[in-house]
Amino acid sequence: MKEFLDEDFLLFTETAKELFHKYASKKPIVDYHCHLSPKEIAQDMQYENINQIWLEGDHYKWRQMRSNGIEEKYITGDAPAREKFQKWAETLERAIGNPLYHWSHLELRRYFDYEGVLNSETAQEVWELCNRKLKEKAMSAREIIKQSGVKAICTTDDPIDALEWHQKIKKDKAFDVKIIPAWRPDKALNIEQPIFADYIDQLSEVSGIDIISFANLKKAFKKRLEFFISLGCRATDHAVEYIAYVPASEKEVETIFEKKLNGNTLSKEEELKYKTAFMIFAGQEYHKNDLVMELHYGCKRNNNTLVFEKFGPDMGYDCINNFSSSSQIADLLNALNSTEQLPKTIIFSLNPNDNSAIGTILGCFQIAPVLSKIQQGSAWWFNDHKAGMIDQLTTLANLGILSNFVGMLTDSRSLLSYARHEYFRRILCNLIGKWVENGEYPYDIKILSRIIEDISYDNAVRYFKFDL
Amino acid sequence: MKEFLDEDFLLFTETAKELFHKYASKKPIVDYHCHLSPKEIAQDMQYENINQIWLEGDHYKWRQMRSNGIEEKYITGDAPAREKFQKWAETLERAIGNPLYHWSHLELRRYFDYEGVLNSETAQEVWELCNRKLKEKAMSAREIIKQSGVKAICTTDDPIDALEWHQKIKKDKAFDVKIIPAWRPDKALNIEQPIFADYIDQLSEVSGIDIISFANLKKAFKKRLEFFISLGCRATDHAVEYIAYVPASEKEVETIFEKKLNGNTLSKEEELKYKTAFMIFAGQEYHKNDLVMELHYGCKRNNNTLVFEKFGPDMGYDCINNFSSSSQIADLLNALNSTEQLPKTIIFSLNPNDNSAIGTILGCFQIAPVLSKIQQGSAWWFNDHKAGMIDQLTTLANLGILSNFVGMLTDSRSLLSYARHEYFRRILCNLIGKWVENGEYPYDIKILSRIIEDISYDNAVRYFKFDL
Amino acid sequence: MKEFLDEDFLLFTETAKELFHKYASKKPIVDYHCHLSPKEIAQDMQYENINQIWLEGDHYKWRQMRSNGIEEKYITGDAPAREKFQKWAETLERAIGNPLYHWSHLELRRYFDYEGVLNSETAQEVWELCNRKLKEKAMSAREIIKQSGVKAICTTDDPIDALEWHQKIKKDKAFDVKIIPAWRPDKALNIEQPIFADYIDQLSEVSGIDIISFANLKKAFKKRLEFFISLGCRATDHAVEYIAYVPASEKEVETIFEKKLNGNTLSKEEELKYKTAFMIFAGQEYHKNDLVMELHYGCKRNNNTLVFEKFGPDMGYDCINNFSSSSQIADLLNALNSTEQLPKTIIFSLNPNDNSAIGTILGCFQIAPVLSKIQQGSAWWFNDHKAGMIDQLTTLANLGILSNFVGMLTDSRSLLSYARHEYFRRILCNLIGKWVENGEYPYDIKILSRIIEDISYDNAVRYFKFDL
Repeated sequence: MKEFLDEDFLLFTETAKELFHKYASKKPIVDYHCHLSPKEIAQDMQYENINQIWLEGDHYKWRQMRSNGIEEKYITGDAPAREKFQKWAETLERAIGNPLYHWSHLELRRYFDYEGVLNSETAQEVWELCNRKLKEKAMSAREIIKQSGVKAICTTDDPIDALEWHQKIKKDKAFDVKIIPAWRPDKALNIEQPIFADYIDQLSEVSGIDIISFANLKKAFKKRLEFFISLGCRATDHAVEYIAYVPASEKEVETIFEKKLNGNTLSKEEELKYKTAFMIFAGQEYHKNDLVMELHYGCKRNNNTLVFEKFGPDMGYDCINNFSSSSQIADLLNALNSTEQLPKTIIFSLNPNDNSAIGTILGCFQIAPVLSKIQQGSAWWFNDHKAGMIDQLTTLANLGILSNFVGMLTDSRSLLSYARHEYFRRILCNLIGKWVENGEYPYDIKILSRIIEDISYDNAVRYFKFDL
Repeated sequence: MKEFLDEDFLLFTETAKELFHKYASKKPIVDYHCHLSPKEIAQDMQYENINQIWLEGDHYKWRQMRSNGIEEKYITGDAPAREKFQKWAETLERAIGNPLYHWSHLELRRYFDYEGVLNSETAQEVWELCNRKLKEKAMSAREIIKQSGVKAICTTDDPIDALEWHQKIKKDKAFDVKIIPAWRPDKALNIEQPIFADYIDQLSEVSGIDIISFANLKKAFKKRLEFFISLGCRATDHAVEYIAYVPASEKEVETIFEKKLNGNTLSKEEELKYKTAFMIFAGQEYHKNDLVMELHYGCKRNNNTLVFEKFGPDMGYDCINNFSSSSQIADLLNALNSTEQLPKTIIFSLNPNDNSAIGTILGCFQIAPVLSKIQQGSAWWFNDHKAGMIDQLTTLANLGILSNFVGMLTDSRSLLSYARHEYFRRILCNLIGKWVENGEYPYDIKILSRIIEDISYDNAVRYFKFDL
Repeated sequence: MKEFLDEDFLLFTETAKELFHKYASKKPIVDYHCHLSPKEIAQDMQYENINQIWLEGDHYKWRQMRSNGIEEKYITGDAPAREKFQKWAETLERAIGNPLYHWSHLELRRYFDYEGVLNSETAQEVWELCNRKLKEKAMSAREIIKQSGVKAICTTDDPIDALEWHQKIKKDKAFDVKIIPAWRPDKALNIEQPIFADYIDQLSEVSGIDIISFANLKKAFKKRLEFFISLGCRATDHAVEYIAYVPASEKEVETIFEKKLNGNTLSKEEELKYKTAFMIFAGQEYHKNDLVMELHYGCKRNNNTLVFEKFGPDMGYDCINNFSSSSQIADLLNALNSTEQLPKTIIFSLNPNDNSAIGTILGCFQIAPVLSKIQQGSAWWFNDHKAGMIDQLTTLANLGILSNFVGMLTDSRSLLSYARHEYFRRILCNLIGKWVENGEYPYDIKILSRIIEDISYDNAVRYFKFDL
C-alpha cells in the first residue's frame, strides 16, 4: 500500500517519478486564467485565519458541505469561524474520491507543513497550526505567490475596470511577478441580461464614447482593449452558456442593439445574432492584437432562484448545460478564419462529453507558425479532477499534439490553489510515464523531458508571448 | 491468474478484500426499487423449474439470446423448457464481458451452490441441479428473500392498484421483511398515450372521484397516495422519455386536460405543459408527505412495432433516448425548490453521458438537514455493469459526497437478482480499496468501514426512513 | 519497463499473449470498408518513395503536422519530398499518445523491417531504407496485399462508376484476393448539395434511365446496384451528418424531388423527408439482395471554407457533429423492420458518446438466424485509437454479444494500413485476456480462441457472406 499523499503521490511508475521530480516539479508556473483579487496582491494582504484564505469565496467547498447536510450558517452564514472550520473538516472526511480531498491536503502540506490528515478529530490542531502560520510574513499574498514559483498571473477583469491595482503592482519594482489583466467582456456580450443597458451606460462613461449603436460599442471596446493591452493584457475570456453561430447583416445587428437599448425584450434568435456579431468582431480585434481568445462554455448559472435572490451569483449553484452544437462552434471559427482573422483560441467546455468533438474542431483550423494555434483548455471546474484531467489529456493526445498543450491554470479565487498545478503535473507525468513503461512510447528522456517541461510551462509562455 | 469468480471476485487489493468481507458483505439489503410481484411473495411461491425464476420475464436475457441468433420460439415462444435453457446456456457462453455472465454465475453459486461454469456442455447438469434445488422449501419466494438478508422491498405499483397482496403480507406476522408499495403514477402522467382516457376512468372509479378536470385528478391522486402511505409507502417513481420544464398557467393546463379527455390529440408543447404541471404538483405532495421522488428518464420504449403489436411492452425492445436537457431538469427542481417544496429526489438517466450533468445539478439543491437530499441513482438498466457502476461512482465522488450515496437497488423481476447487490458492493469496495492502496485516501478503517456500510445499507434506511 | 513496440506490444498478460500469438495473429484479413484505389491494385503499382504510399492522401498525418505548426507547403504543398518527410518525422516525435505513433511504427516494422524509432534524427536513415525497400517487387500494391494476409477488400464506389478496374482485377487469375466494389450512393442521397442535379444527370446517362422523378431514380438505383452485385458487391455504405427519420408520402417526396431538379432550394424538413424516403427504399433493396447496409454518421465536413475553396474535400478539415437523435435512428430501423425488410445493418458514429445509445438500439432489432444482424461498427476515424477501441468493445460487450462482432476494417487510403488490423487484434486480445486473468471469465481456451478468431475474421466472412 502506498502511503497517503507521499512524495510519489499519483506517480505509479519509475518513469513517472523521474519525469515529475526531475522536470515537472522544477518548472515555474504561469497561471493564465484565475480569479485572484489584484487588490489583495497589491496590498500584499495578510490573512487572519485559515477560513479567510481557504473557505471564504470557495464555492467548491460550499457545495460539498451542503451535500453533507451542513446548515448554511456554517457555510456562508454567521457561525463562528472555528465552528465553520469544524463542519468543513467533518465534510472533508466524507469526501472520499473528491478532488477537494487531494487539493486540500496538498495545500496543507505545501503551505502549512501539515503532514497529517484533516478530519473531525484533527480539526483543532489544523486550525491552530494554520492560523499560527498565517501570521508569518512568509504567508502574505505576495510571498505565497513567490514561494509557489509563479512567474505570471492573468486575473479576470471587466472592460470598465480602471485596473488601478494592476497599475500599482506594475509600478512596484520590489515585486517582479507579472500580474496582468485579462479582458472579459461578458457583460457587453450578454445582451439578454437585465443589467445590459446599465452596463452599456457605465461603459459609455468609462470609455468616453456615447454607445448609442453597436458601431459605437465597437469603438468603446477597442479603446478599452487598448488600455488593457497597455497594461500587458495577453488573454481574453468569454463565458457563454453555449457557443452559437447565427450570422446576420450589420444592419440587423444594429436594429437588435437599438431594440434592446430601447427597453424591449429580444427573441432568442435576436440574442444569438447579436452574440455572433459580437464574437466575430471581438475575435477580429484579438487577432489584430495577437491576443488569445478563451471560450468557456457549457455552464448554466444560478439555478437556485431562492438563493440567487438573497445572495446573488457565484454561490455554488451552477450546473453543466448539456446543450452544445459542435457544428456551430466550427462555423464560428470558420467565419473568423475565412477572412484570415481567427485569433489563437482556447476552447473549454464544462461538459466533458464535448472533449472529442472539440478535439476534432481544433484540427480544422491549425495553421503555421503557431504550435497548435487552436487549443483545448485543461479540464475545467467540475472536470478539474483526476478522471477529468486524464480524459482531457488522453482525448487531446488521440486527436492532436499533446506536446503542444498550453497546460494548466487554477481558475481559482484562492492563492493556495497553486497546488493544483502540482496535481496536474503529477497526473500528466503519470499518464506519460505509463505509456512509456507499457512500451507505447520509447524511453527517450531528452524528448520526454522536453514534452513535460513544455506542457508544464514553456508552451504557455510561448503561446501567450509572456515577456518573462 | 485469478480463478473465475472466486471469493475475491472483483477485489484486487487487500483493502478491497477487507472492506468487502468484513463490512459490505455483512450488511443486510434494502431494495428500494424493483419489479417483484407482491403476489408471488404473498403466496410464498415455489418454482417448478429454473426457467420460471430465471428466464421468464427477463428481457435482459432475451435480448442477448436474440443477439446470438436464437429463434424467438426458444426465447419467449413455446419451445420445451429444457431446450430454451440449452439455448440460453449457448448464448451465455458467448456473452463474454456482459454483466449477465457475472450475475448468472453469482446467482448459480449463491442460490444453487453450483461452482462450475454454465455453457452448452454443462447445461444439462445445471438444469438438473437447479430444478432439484428449487423443490426444497428453502427455495420458496420468502425463503429466498430471507436467505438474501433482505430487510425491506419497495415494489412498483400503480395508483389504481388495490394493494391486496401488500395487505396480506403485512398482516402475516410470520414474515417480517417489509414489502412496501411504491407509487408509480406514469399512466396519469403520460397524457399522450392512447390509454390515458381509459386510465382516468379507472382512476375515477377506484378513487370515487369523478375526474373531469386536472383539479379532480389532483384530488384522486392525493386520496390514493394517502392509501399507499397507509401501507408504508416511502418511495415514488416516474419513468419519462426526458425531463421537461414547460410551465403553464393552471387555466391552460385545465384546457389541455379537457382537450385530451374530449378525444383530441395534443401538441408536443401541450403534452409537456401538462407533464410539467403534473410533476410540480406531484413533487409538492411528495414533499408534504416526506416521500422520495425517483425520476427515471432517458428510455425510448417499444421500438419494434412488429413485436409490440403482437406481444405488447416489456419484451426487450427499448433503447436509450439520447435527448435530454440538463437545463430543464435544473429548472424543474428549481421550480419546486422556489416554494420550498422540493422533495428528496433521486435522478436516474439511462444515458450514461448525463452522469456529469446530473452530478452538477444535485449540488444546486442540496440543503440541510438531509445528507445529500438530491441523489444520483445507481447505474441503471443498460448501465448496470462494472464499467457503468464505476463511472457512476466516480462521477458522483468527483462532484458530490459519495459517502452519502443511497446505493444499489435491483430494478429486477427475479428474486435471484439480490446477487446484484453483492456485485455492486464488490465493485464499490474495489474502487475505494484502490484509492486507499494508491495513496489517494488514508487507510483509516474506522472511517472507511463506516463509508462502506453507509453506502451498502445505512444511508438508504436513513434517507427513505424505513422503519426497520 | 516494457520495450517500445516489442512482440508483446499492448499485451499485458499471459492470456493476452497466448490469444494474440496463437490465434488472432494467424487469421487472415477481410477489409470490408476502405478507400483503396482499385486502379492502383489493377496496375499493381510500385511506389517511388515512402511519401507516395505513406503521406500523400493521408489527412490523419496532415492534421497532426498542421497542429505541430508545420507550413502547408511541407504538408500538401510543393516542398521537396525529403523535406516533407523530415517535417513529418519531427511531428511524429511530438505525437506522444497519438495512434499515428503506433500505426506508423508498426508499419515501419512490418513492411520495412525498421526496428528503430522514427524521429527528427533518424528521418534520413528511415527515408533511405524505405525508398530502397519500395523498389523491391515484394512491395508492389498486390504483393503488399498478399503479404498482409488479406483475403477480401471492399473498396468504396459511386453508383455511376464503371468499375473497370474491378473488372480487370476479377479477370486476372494470377491475383486471387477478392477486390469487391462497395455501393456508396451518397451523391444521390445528399439532395441539399449543389452538385445534386448534375449528379442526377450523370446517373441518368450511366443508367440509361431518364431520372425525371424519384420513381425513376429508384429504377436507376436498382439497375446500377444489380451491376455492382454482378461484380460481387456485398456491402453498401452511407455517410450522413446524422440519421434522420422524417416520413412523408410518396407524393410529397416526388414534389420535393421535382422542386430540387427545378433549381429550387429545399427546406431542412424537405431535405430530411427526401433522405428518409431514400434510405427506406435503399434499405429495402439491400434487404432483398442480402446486402449489408453500413451507416456512417456524425461527421461535419469541410469546415475550413478557405481551404475548401482552394483544394476541395478530404483535406483533413472535418469534425465530429455532436447532434444525433438515437430516437430517429431507432425509428428508421423500425420503419424498415415493420415490413420485414430491414437489411443487415452496421452503425458507425463519429461521436463516441453515442456508443451506449447505439448498443441499445441494436438489441431492438436482432432476429434469427443472423448472429447479431444489427452491428455496431468498429471505433471509427477519430475514435480509431486504443481508448476508442476499448470503449467500443466494452460497450458492445456490456450491451450485446461481443463474440458476434464483425470486427475491424481499415477505412484507409494506404495499403500499409493493414497494420491497424494487428493493432485492433492486440487491443482485443488484451481486453479479453485481462477479463480472464482477473477472474471475470473462465480460462477455457477452446471457447476463448473461437471468440478471438471469430471477431478477427470468421464473423465478417459469415456476416457479409464473402465467398472465400
